[in-house]
Order: sequence, then structure tokens, then C-alpha cells
Amino acid sequence: MAQPQIKKIGIFKCGNIGTSPLLELLLDELADRKDIKVRTVTTGSKMGPDDVEEAMPKMFEFNPDLLIVISPNTSLPGPRKFREKISSSGLPGIVISDAPGKRAKEEIEQQGLGYMIITGDPLIGARKQFLDPIEMAIFNSNVSKVLAITGVYRIVHQEIDNVIYAIENGQKPDLPRLIVDLKVVRDRSEFSNPYAKAKAIAAYGLAEKIAEINVQACFIEKDSEKYIPLVTCAHEIAQTAARLAEDAREIEKGNDTVMRKPHSKSGKLKIKTKLMLPPVSDEEFYDENVS
Amino acid sequence: MAQPQIKKIGIFKCGNIGTSPLLELLLDELADRKDIKVRTVTTGSKMGPDDVEEAMPKMFEFNPDLLIVISPNTSLPGPRKFREKISSSGLPGIVISDAPGKRAKEEIEQQGLGYMIITGDPLIGARKQFLDPIEMAIFNSNVSKVLAITGVYRIVHQEIDNVIYAIENGQKPDLPRLIVDLKVVRDRSEFSNPYAKAKAIAAYGLAEKIAEINVQACFIEKDSEKYIPLVTCAHEIAQTAARLAEDAREIEKGNDTVMRKPHSKSGKLKIKTKLMLPPVSDEEFYDENVS
Amino acid sequence: MAQPQIKKIGIFKCGNIGTSPLLELLLDELADRKDIKVRTVTTGSKMGPDDVEEAMPKMFEFNPDLLIVISPNTSLPGPRKFREKISSSGLPGIVISDAPGKRAKEEIEQQGLGYMIITGDPLIGARKQFLDPIEMAIFNSNVSKVLAITGVYRIVHQEIDNVIYAIENGQKPDLPRLIVDLKVVRDRSEFSNPYAKAKAIAAYGLAEKIAEINVQACFIEKDSEKYIPLVTCAHEIAQTAARLAEDAREIEKGNDTVMRKPHSKSGKLKIKTKLMLPPVSDEEFYDENVS
Amino acid sequence: MAQPQIKKIGIFKCGNIGTSPLLELLLDELADRKDIKVRTVTTGSKMGPDDVEEAMPKMFEFNPDLLIVISPNTSLPGPRKFREKISSSGLPGIVISDAPGKRAKEEIEQQGLGYMIITGDPLIGARKQFLDPIEMAIFNSNVSKVLAITGVYRIVHQEIDNVIYAIENGQKPDLPRLIVDLKVVRDRSEFSNPYAKAKAIAAYGLAEKIAEINVQACFIEKDSEKYIPLVTCAHEIAQTAARLAEDAREIEKGNDTVMRKPHSKSGKLKIKTKLMLPPVSDEEFYDENVS
Amino acid sequence: MAQPQIKKIGIFKCGNIGTSPLLELLLDELADRKDIKVRTVTTGSKMGPDDVEEAMPKMFEFNPDLLIVISPNTSLPGPRKFREKISSSGLPGIVISDAPGKRAKEEIEQQGLGYMIITGDPLIGARKQFLDPIEMAIFNSNVSKVLAITGVYRIVHQEIDNVIYAIENGQKPDLPRLIVDLKVVRDRSEFSNPYAKAKAIAAYGLAEKIAEINVQACFIEKDSEKYIPLVTCAHEIAQTAARLAEDAREIEKGNDTVMRKPHSKSGKLKIKTKLMLPPVSDEEFYDENVS
Amino acid sequence: MAQPQIKKIGIFKCGNIGTSPLLELLLDELADRKDIKVRTVTTGSKMGPDDVEEAMPKMFEFNPDLLIVISPNTSLPGPRKFREKISSSGLPGIVISDAPGKRAKEEIEQQGLGYMIITGDPLIGARKQFLDPIEMAIFNSNVSKVLAITGVYRIVHQEIDNVIYAIENGQKPDLPRLIVDLKVVRDRSEFSNPYAKAKAIAAYGLAEKIAEINVQACFIEKDSEKYIPLVTCAHEIAQTAARLAEDAREIEKGNDTVMRKPHSKSGKLKIKTKLMLPPVSDEEFYDENVS
Repeated sequence: MAQPQIKKIGIFKCGNIGTSPLLELLLDELADRKDIKVRTVTTGSKMGPDDVEEAMPKMFEFNPDLLIVISPNTSLPGPRKFREKISSSGLPGIVISDAPGKRAKEEIEQQGLGYMIITGDPLIGARKQFLDPIEMAIFNSNVSKVLAITGVYRIVHQEIDNVIYAIENGQKPDLPRLIVDLKVVRDRSEFSNPYAKAKAIAAYGLAEKIAEINVQACFIEKDSEKYIPLVTCAHEIAQTAARLAEDAREIEKGNDTVMRKPHSKSGKLKIKTKLMLPPVSDEEFYDENVS
Repeated sequence: MAQPQIKKIGIFKCGNIGTSPLLELLLDELADRKDIKVRTVTTGSKMGPDDVEEAMPKMFEFNPDLLIVISPNTSLPGPRKFREKISSSGLPGIVISDAPGKRAKEEIEQQGLGYMIITGDPLIGARKQFLDPIEMAIFNSNVSKVLAITGVYRIVHQEIDNVIYAIENGQKPDLPRLIVDLKVVRDRSEFSNPYAKAKAIAAYGLAEKIAEINVQACFIEKDSEKYIPLVTCAHEIAQTAARLAEDAREIEKGNDTVMRKPHSKSGKLKIKTKLMLPPVSDEEFYDENVS
Repeated sequence: MAQPQIKKIGIFKCGNIGTSPLLELLLDELADRKDIKVRTVTTGSKMGPDDVEEAMPKMFEFNPDLLIVISPNTSLPGPRKFREKISSSGLPGIVISDAPGKRAKEEIEQQGLGYMIITGDPLIGARKQFLDPIEMAIFNSNVSKVLAITGVYRIVHQEIDNVIYAIENGQKPDLPRLIVDLKVVRDRSEFSNPYAKAKAIAAYGLAEKIAEINVQACFIEKDSEKYIPLVTCAHEIAQTAARLAEDAREIEKGNDTVMRKPHSKSGKLKIKTKLMLPPVSDEEFYDENVS
Repeated sequence: MAQPQIKKIGIFKCGNIGTSPLLELLLDELADRKDIKVRTVTTGSKMGPDDVEEAMPKMFEFNPDLLIVISPNTSLPGPRKFREKISSSGLPGIVISDAPGKRAKEEIEQQGLGYMIITGDPLIGARKQFLDPIEMAIFNSNVSKVLAITGVYRIVHQEIDNVIYAIENGQKPDLPRLIVDLKVVRDRSEFSNPYAKAKAIAAYGLAEKIAEINVQACFIEKDSEKYIPLVTCAHEIAQTAARLAEDAREIEKGNDTVMRKPHSKSGKLKIKTKLMLPPVSDEEFYDENVS
Repeated sequence: MAQPQIKKIGIFKCGNIGTSPLLELLLDELADRKDIKVRTVTTGSKMGPDDVEEAMPKMFEFNPDLLIVISPNTSLPGPRKFREKISSSGLPGIVISDAPGKRAKEEIEQQGLGYMIITGDPLIGARKQFLDPIEMAIFNSNVSKVLAITGVYRIVHQEIDNVIYAIENGQKPDLPRLIVDLKVVRDRSEFSNPYAKAKAIAAYGLAEKIAEINVQACFIEKDSEKYIPLVTCAHEIAQTAARLAEDAREIEKGNDTVMRKPHSKSGKLKIKTKLMLPPVSDEEFYDENVS
Repeated sequence: MAQPQIKKIGIFKCGNIGTSPLLELLLDELADRKDIKVRTVTTGSKMGPDDVEEAMPKMFEFNPDLLIVISPNTSLPGPRKFREKISSSGLPGIVISDAPGKRAKEEIEQQGLGYMIITGDPLIGARKQFLDPIEMAIFNSNVSKVLAITGVYRIVHQEIDNVIYAIENGQKPDLPRLIVDLKVVRDRSEFSNPYAKAKAIAAYGLAEKIAEINVQACFIEKDSEKYIPLVTCAHEIAQTAARLAEDAREIEKGNDTVMRKPHSKSGKLKIKTKLMLPPVSDEEFYDENVS
């Protein structure tokens, strides 16, 4: 009887943004969740229509209950193709993309899909004089730390979790429609110290700046004397942003107020702050912290 | 005529280690490589035999020319199942795993597969009082930075690149058989300053220590008063190791000697150190730096 | 006979930007320059037309040979009044202002004045819940460090120096017409290590981001729950930017390549890099470093 | 009826110390104070008697209600001239100077003036091989941060504020007579954490050490091999002191106990600690924090 | 009558470990303890049997009431000789040694002596290409900081203090029998913030890793190309461990919860946490902090 | 025939300064020097005349060829007693002490002894509310790092080495007569980068400041409200000084120019800078680095 409750989450990644590499892991960080299975198919760093076309069918053959597609700029032909496919399949679908993806916002809404556009998930400095596999990995490491600590990854998994819960309960899910910008980070980040929060927002602001500079460096400047300093500068900002985010978390650690929300085996989030105490349900947590 | 040269790399991930999330991106960091396509299928954080059994066929349906399977402890039933399948398929295959994977070394060799066992890709602190999606992501970010900067990711992609080149040239590839431990990192890391190198090795040593402590915390200690401090301590070491690796790279940056090896469109690695100069072929590089 | 050569530089400050507090000191850092005298009149933090009107005459009574007016947003009524007065006086004049001052660019050109618009001299977080005299001073300290190290203060004093030299030689000075943005900083900063330069540009990029966030916080958000985190975040970025600039300079120190350009007694800039060597004339310096 | 209450504060700066550049801004950091106007006249970095003589009259023509003169070593001829002029004018006057100014203490008292001698406002490393406009600005940035965070700027503006309030109320002001040394900083700094306070005092102690070393380097050592390392060392201490002061403030931020005292429009200081709460009057503040 | 109560503690050091240099000072840090005298005899860095034989008699001529011998690897002939001598003397004796000393554990027990084996007191990188007096001192400084902050020095002096109290009271002392490993540090360290504690344990874990790497570098690798990077790496870890320990203490300082246990004149430990309060007796302390 | 060349160095420590704990280890850091034996006798932290009187004879019974006495303020009765004894014994003797020891300078010279007075070996903050064994150890760790890196320990061991060489060669040794102050550190420290050197001198300057503040805190202030912040502040400076010294060394590491001078087995110092090269004799070293 438990069997019917196991829902299958299909994730399709084409190309890469900072939210991509760990996305499926965010949903089941302890690998002990009994209510879902996750299957991911990716086309690596490439995101051309051919790549998508070839890989897409495998995703659907998994018979997922929920589909998530994540890519840079979802308005490009490759990701668009996948969106169309979800839309026509009638399955609930969520699109995750970076700032340029904003352009597709209306289209996505018309397709009946949810979306999370993450303005601080910045374009990488993709210039051959600068970017090699190591530099690429370092950049992803830094961006990932920023998105984790500032609360963006929390928003991402909670929004998906909510959709899953609805599906599990046989309800029509409320798909997220969110531009995750600096203000959303400010309003939804989970810090108890206001300076920690300010540092986190600052880190996110830096991530937005990276995007701005890398767009200039990758698409506008033509002379290597001009764009090498810019991509290098953008990656320096990524490193700085990661440190700043870390500083924010260190403050919470110093006060023993880090908020943690592990998934329980049933899939529900538990919640805790004091490190030596066990996580509890939302109700218990807020009861305790109010009374 | 170019068409036949495009080789397809299939990557199967079950469960997660620090080398997993960015693996396919390491092979084509600029997304402009003309000689390969990468297709990845993953089972998320879970790695049970059922998961593998269900997802495995999709991987083979892609008709890959080279298969890579990456997972924690490859001697567990899930990953083993996949290894058996590659072995019986006759396709060239490479197994990537963490320290406990060492146990399967002989078996892998008998299966005719290559392997890279990464002793400094440490077990995460998977205790529900501690690990939530955010903490998981931060850990991956830190480990990823260590593996990138110390040269482990370089070893990984170069070994795979070499196998790909052989396949492209119609040769039988020399599959890697490597335990990537502290000594291998010492001998293969690409630093020009000896203290930078020492800091990088140190960071890798720290990563090995994380593994040791997390094994104690996750599998041996039963009392949360005992294991919570241990997993927390292990993740602190991860943060420290990432900083130390960063310090190593900062020295090279200060001397403008960071070695970069971007993939060219043809798939060959180019090489460079001085930031403002273009990457060149190996031959040109070593000519120049010797004469 | 030396007497006629002493030129008088009049500086009028109304309101404050990061370039204001040290401006006159940049021209004569060792207080031993024989060719100029500097006189400054300021209206403090206020910049209303009344303030300007009352203080302005004193400036002109000093009979300056060159007039500089520095203020936030030079298109506001107070600074504009002063610009009109210089323009009608026929004296050579230079306007220094921050990003919003760009709006007055054409007007300034029509007034025959020079200008330096410094896009990375950011608006302060002027909210009473946040800004007290101490926070204001810390912000100025951080911004000042960024502008000094990234090379903006160098641009400012060199441009003014050039105008002074022209006046001293009885020539019509070439007044500067510069929007000092990220690209100008990239092209004119004086680092020898390319990563130091990238860090400096990054610091300047951060300073631009401060401005963007503080404009939102000071002029758009109405609710203190919304704007306090933003101003706090902006000042965190200022602190971070100062550190990043410092890191840039530390690299140059580590290589003994810090470029220094002290004013000689005659007013001419000397130049040096190796700390233990004396500064020399431009000609000697470039001779030496080329041959 | 409000008009008569607007008092005019005249500030005369000749030469520069760390307290000079931001002095007038400390009095009206939000530029919205209705009870005062500030007018400043400066002679730039020079402080010769001629400079003072020429610039001084402009200051008096502003008809100030309170006069402040700030300079290095107030016992030198230039600043002395200005002191004499205030004294003979009968206007209330305050002298701000650095450690060597202590020598003039008795004289100032006989002149009926107030004073604040700031022992940790150190002599700059004015050696042409070392000091250029950028190094000068960096030094001021560092010293400024130390003086702001350790509480010296607070002492300075509060003492002046008190004099202004007295003048506004038609009372004879109690002019400050303070040697602001390490012990005064210890006794008047506004930290709630005792280690934060200790770090701040330490930063101030470092600033005193800078002065000691720079005096040796600028006035005693004759050989550049001897004095260049000393001035460089002194500026390194300035950077270190700024960081230490910052560390002190970071502790308070981590505890959300930063004390802020913004000026209200009426000129009165408000007070607050918790960042998200509004500043209140002294009475409200201490009421709340006691009960 | 007080005279008979003064007990004499004899400390014999041969060779050096991180706990050696400050050992006697830990017992009487304020030099005002009235109940004991300490006399130390050492053979410097050498620990051969001849050295011990020559120096040993002096120790016994002091007529100590308690004997402590501290050395690297107490199973080596030199330290063993001294152990035998204590054992046969019938005096109470405590052996302090590093990880390799574990081998002598049974022997020590049979000799009726106490012991503290400190697994995180690591072998130094004794290779002539690397270790000179300065590098040796830096290593000791780092190790000492780790052992102090993580609580190892606390364990050491409290265990000795307890033996002294017993002797003073005419009781047969309970000699310590402790392997001070990561778990003991976890269980006995005195942090109030759990992340501070985790950082401290992490620092101790790093110290254990140093030992592991230096054993490899000093005793196994034969080629300088192989061992120089390893000893350098081990010392880098020492520096990192010291910083991490410092970070742990900084958290406690930020919360004003640093636990201090100064010796009173009578020899008893007092205890305190809040910096501005006086130390009190154990009873008073725990009364206060409970009620 | 080698036997007669083994000289015995006797070290007597009473009380403790930062140079004490590692002194004998500085002479034989690798424990393989064939030309000397070191024997140390100490009275722990106490330095009363009784302590000295009781322990002194043991030192002489060792029949040393050279005697070194190290203590705080050598003009106090305890250390003075020992000096008298050396002087009357006719043995060559060296006195090492801290700044207050300067008072005994003439007396020492009259006694025919050598001396090294280390002005930056600061008094500890010996107040019972602050100093416990852990705080004492941390302070020693920090001071030790400063003295090691700034070159003071180098001066100390080289001066003693020179005396030993003379004794070995049957010459009358030239005993050192040195006040090791900031200027000596400037002139004798072994940095190749001038900013590294400046940072090291700065660290030493900070150490001098510690002494100044601790004298005030320990001997002058009577009220704990006054002296606790001062001793805490002094220990903060110690931590800062250690970091600054570390920064200095990091620069040299980044340039691979750390100077190392290990003792050879014969006792002679070898010398090297490039980490991967072996140490060589002085002659070889300077030959190579000049030509």
C-alpha cells in the first residue's frame, strides 16, 4: 500500500547553472526519503536542440509524476523544446533558469508551467583564455555556496517539496512563479541575526554583479585585453561572495541559531536551530520558540 | 566526415560523492567541444540495486562509446550491478569512487574496467540532526573546491580525455587504474610554487581526515551527544580545507603562474600559465618555457 | 621670480561623496609642493542652494586660478548654482560628482567645464535607523580605500595635475571629460599582476553595486523592515570591497611592484615601484624598465 | 521663530590629521539637522603662518557661533596664529590636535579655549620614497576606521554637540579639555562585549605605536635604508589596527549590540542598539534597557 | 606549619613534544602558588640513554614528591631508562608522551606509573632541508596553541593538580591513565558554543593528521623530492590547525563565555567565564550558573 | 679524538619570558648536532632567590663549558644571584632578559658577561581574573611566533652559536652585548621582500606595545575595571602580532625566498632559500646568489 505513494521526480538538465549540479540532491539529502524517487537526465554542458531532442525521450520513459527542467536562459531553443514537451504532456512542470530566462516568463506561464528565475545565479566567465575545467569547478563551488547559504537553495527545494506534497495528496499543485531576486532573498532568508542577513543579501547582490560583468565580458567585449580582466574580475567577485556568505553563516553558528530543515523519511521537512537538539516538526518548533 | 568522430560519453551516477556533481562539465567546460557528446543518467542520492536496475537501461540506450560510473563505495550492490553490466557489454568503462571503493579494486580489474579511487573525496556527515539540504550543499561546495584546486579534478578529466583520444583514434584505450591518494596528489599537482603545492597537499590531507571522522560519526557512534560534534567537526574541516586550497591558488595567482588547461574545440587540451596570454598546445608551451 | 608660478587651486565642496574628504590632500600629499596653494571652502554635509549661495563668495575672494567643485549629484540646485558661477567667471573649472551626476554631463560641457563622474563613488545608506556619525565614517573609510587602491584617486589627481601644469605653462588646459566607470578603471589602473588588477576592478564593481542598492533603500523602499536590511547590506559590501582592494595591493606588495607617484617639490610627479629605490622622473623610469 | 536657533559652526583646518577629513560630517551625518550650519575653510595639507593668515579671515566673515580649529601639532606657528585669533575674538573655540599638540595644553587653557588632544591620531609616514597620494589616502582610511570604531569620533562629536546645545540654550558652554589617550578610550568606548572592547583599545594602542615609529622615521633617521622600512612598518600597523577595530565591531554586530547615535533633526542625539528597532531618546533607551 | 605542605614537583624532559616547553608553567601560571615548587631538568632536544643517564641524578637530588617525565615516544631507550628509575624509586610518577608512546602503555601500567598519551601532539617535520631553528619554533608555537585551546593543556594540568592535591592531603594519588585522543578532547573540552567545540575538535583532528604525514615524511620516504613537500604540508596543517583553534576561542570570546581556571595561591583552581567578574570556587560557580 | 670537542651548554631558566621555553631547542633543532650537549635546569615560573639558590648548584655540577641564564628582569634578586655565581666561576656566560633587564646592563658588563636584552619579549598580563594556564600558553605561543619570524630567535641562536664555535676552537669568545630593539630587528631580519620585512618589524613593534600596556595593567592600575580591559587588550595585540608575523612569512613563502639555517651535524649553520634545494655552506650560498 505504500507503493502508490512513491512519486517519481524527473529532472532534465541541459547546460549548467549554479543551481543545477546539486538540484536532485537537495530533495533527498540523506538518501532516506521514502516518498520519492529522483531520476535525472542531462546533456552535459551543451544545450543545443539536437542534444535535447536526443536525450528528452529517456526522461519521459521514466514516467515521472513531476518534471523539472533546469538550464541557462530558458528562452533558448534547447530548453524551450523541453518546455514545450512538458507542456503538451500535461504533467506538472517547473522551469528553473537564470536571469536571462526572465524573457520567457510569459511564455512559461502560458505553457502552464511553474518557474523559478534566479537572478543571482550568474553566467560563468566562458572565455578560453580563462576558463578551464578547474576554473569552472571553482566558480561552481563559489556560486553554490552563495546560493546555499543565502537561502536560494532553500527556496528551491521548499517550492518543489510543496508541489510534491500536493501531488502526494492528490491535489493540483500550486506551481511556483518566482523571480528570486535580491528582495526575495531579503524577505525569505532564514537568519536570526540581522547583520548575518545583511551579509547574505550582500553576497547575493555580488552574485548579481558577476552576471552583469560576465555578460559584458562574454558577449560584448571583443578584445582579449579587455575581456580577460573582466572575466577574471567576475570570478574574484564569486570568491568574495562565497566568503561573505560564509561569514553570515559563521555569525549564526556563533549564536547557535543556524536553521536546519532536514527531510524526514516521510518527506516532510523537520526544523531545528540549536545544534545539539533534534529536529522537530514545524508545529513543535514554533510552539516552543513562541511560548 | 567529421560526424563519425563524435564519440558519446555515458555517465551513470548513483548516490553522490564530491566528484559527481561536476563530472560531465569537466569534460567540456566551454560547451564547445566538437568531438564528444555527454549524456548523464542519475538516480539522485539513492544508490540501491532497484534504483540502478530501473535507470541503467536508459544509459545503454544512448549507445555510448565510453561508460563512466561514479558512486560512493563501488563495492555496494547498486554500483556493483552497474559495473557488471558494463563489463558484460564489452564497452570500455571507468569506475570512479571514494576510499571504501578500494575494496572492489581487484574485482574491477577482473572486470576489465578502469578505476579512479579518490581517497580524499570524503563521506558526508549524514546525520539528521546535522545534515539538511543546505549543509549538504555547503559540504559539496567545499569538497569540490578542494578537489578542483589540488589537482584531483585535473587528474580525473585528463585520464578520461586520454581514453577518449584513444577511442577517437581507433586505439584500445589504456584505462586508468589509480588510487588517488595524498602521494598521487603530491606527484601530479600543477603548482609552480612549492608552498602553494604544500598547502594543496595539506588540503587534500584534511579531506582524508574528514572521511575518517565521518565514518566514526556515521557508522560507529550511536549517541547523538557523541556523533553530532563529530559530523560538525568534519564539516568544519571541509571548510578549512577549502580555504587552504584557495590560499594555495592565491599564491599562484600572485605569481601569475596558475596553470590552465582549457579544452579546444577539437577536444585536445591547450595549456597556459600567464593570464594575459592565449593557451597553446603542449608542444608550444614546453618549448617556450624551456628555451 | 618664483612667486608668479604659485597657482591657487580653489576647491568647493557641498555635500559629501567618497572622493571629497581627501581631495585637496591628493594634490600635495607631502605638503611640500612649491607650485601651488590649495584653499577649500565647504558647506558640510548640506548642499542646499542657500548654503552654496552663502559660502560661494568666499571661494571666489581667494582669487583661484583653477576651481574645482565636488558634490553628490551635480545636477541638483546647489551644485548647479556653483557650476553656473564658475562658468560665468571664465575661470577653468572641474566638476567632480557621482553616478547621478551623469545627467548633467551635457550641461557641464556647454558650461565649458571639465568633469569626472565617478560611477563607483556610491550613495551612503542614509537612513536614521542605520546611519550615525560612526557608521558614516566607516563607510567613508571603506569607500576611500577602494577609490585609492583601484586607481580612481590616481586618475583624479593626475587629471587635475595636468590642468595645473598647463596653467603654469600659460597654456589653455585640456579639461578632463571622464565617466570613470569599471572599464576606465580596468584600462587605467596601475597593477603589474593581472589578478591584482582583477581584484581591484572587482572592488570597483562592488562599489557600483552599493550605489544601486542604496538608491533602492533610500529612495524607493518605504518600510523600515525593507530598507534597513538593504542599507546594512550595502555597507557590508563597502567593507568587502575595501578588503578586496587591499588584497589587490597585497599582491603587488608581495611582488614589490607597488607603483608610487609622489609629487616633487616642483609639482611634477615622480614615479617608482621598488620600495627601497628613490622615485625618479617618468623618463628615467621607463628607460630603466624597458632596457 | 526657529531661525534664531540656527547656529553656525566654523571649522578651520590647516594641515591634516586623521580626525580632520570627516570632522564636519560627524556633526550632521544625515544632512538633515535643522539647528546648525557648518562652514569649513582649509589650507590643504600646508599649515604655514602665511597660509593661515590668508585663509583665516574668510572663516571669521562667516560669523560663526563656535569655532573649531584642527591641525597637526597645534603648537606650530600656523595653528597658533589661528588660536590667538579665536581667543581674541571672544568666540567659544575648540582646538583639536594630535599628540605633539600636548605641548600647547597650558597655552590653550590660558587662551580660554577647549581642546581635544588625540594621542592615537598618528603622524603619517611622510617620506617621498614612500608617500604618494594613494598611500596617503590609504593611511587616512585606516586611521579613520580606527578612530571611528574605537569611539574617538564619538567623543569628538559628542563634546562638540554638548557645546552646541549650550550655545543654543544661551548658556556658557563647558569647553572640552581632554587628552584622548588609551585610558580615555578604554573608559568611554561603547562596546557591550568586553573582548570587543579590548580589541578596540588594542587598535588604539597600535595607533599610538604608529606615531612613535613615524616620529623616529620622519625626524630622526637620516638614511633611507633606515627610514623606509620604518614608515612602511608604521603603515602596516595602521592597516592592522583598522582590521582589529573592524573585528571589534564584528563581535558587536554578531550580538546585535552595535550602539548607534544618529543626530535627530533637532540636533539631539538619539540612541539605539538593536538594528531593526528605531533610535530613541536617551531616556527611553535607558528606561527600556534597565527595566 | 605551612612548610611541610610545600610539595616539590620534579619534571624531567628529554627530547621535545608540543606539551613539553610550557609544562611546568601550566602548574603555576601566575608564579604565586604557595603549595608547590617546580624543578625541571632537561637534556635539550636529545633523548639518548647517555643523556638521560647523566642528567637523571640531578632530578632525584632535588628530592621531589612527584615526578613527571615527558618525551617523544616513551618506549625508546632514553625515556624508558627514566621510567624504570622512577618506578624503582617508589615515588609517584607520571609519563607524558605522544602517539607512538602508546606502545609502552602496558609496561607503564606494570611500572605503577600514570600516563597521558597525547595523540594530537605530532612529530615535527625533522628534515634538514626544511627544519631550522625558526621553523621548529613556529611549529611549536602552532602546536602549543592547538593543545592549549582544544583543552589538552587543561586536561594535563588538572590531572597533575589532582595528583598534587592527593599528595598534599596525604592520600595515595589516583594516577592518570589517559589516551588523549579526539574523543577525549570532544568529551572534556570546555566550550559553551557547540560550533566552537566542533572547530576545536577539528583542530585536534588536524594535529593527528600532521603526525601521520610526518611519520611518512621522516621515516618512510627516502627521496627529498618526495619528503620535502610532505613535511612542508604537515607544517601548513599545523598553522591551519592553530587558526582553527583560534577561531573556536574567538566564538567564545564573542559570547563572553571563555572558561578560565586560574590557580589560587593555595593551589586550588578557581573558575570563571564572564571576563569582568572575578574567578570563584567551583562550588560558587556551579551554584550561580544553575540557580 | 672527537670526544674532547663535545662542549656542554648549561642553561638556567628562572621565571619565564617568551624566549625561554624553546631556548635549548634553538641550538639543536634536529637533535643531531655532534658538537654540543645541552643541559637545562629551571625553577618553573618562580624566580625568587631561594629557588635560584636551591637549583643553581645542579647547573654547575653538570660542568658546563658555557652558561646561559634567562629570566624576566635580570636585575631582580633571583637572576642576579645566578649572574654573580657565573661571574665568579670564570665560565663564559650570557644573560638573556626582557626590557626591564636593561637596568642591569652596566652591572652585567662589569661582571664580564654577555647579554641579549629583548625589548619585544613582553611582560605577560598576569592578573588572576585573566590569566589561567590556557591564556598563559596562548600568549607564549603568540610571542614565540613573533620572536621566531621577526628574526629574534635567529639572532639569539646565532650569537650563542658563535660563542660555541669560539670555545670549540679554543678561542676566547666574543660575548654578545645586544639590546635587541626595533632597529636591530630592522637591520638583522632576513627577509627578501621589503614589505615582508616591514610587516615583521611591525609585529615586533606591537610586541613592544604589549609590554608597555601590561606594565600599566599589572603594576599601576589597582581597579579590576581598569586593568582587566588592559591585559585583555595586550593579549589581543599579541594575537595580532603573531598574525602579522605570519603574513610576513607568507610573502616569503609565496616568493620561495624563506631563509633557512639548519644546524649541520658538526654544529655549523647551513643556509638555503629555495625550498626544494639542499642547504649549503655560507660560502657556497653567497657565491651562487651573487654570480
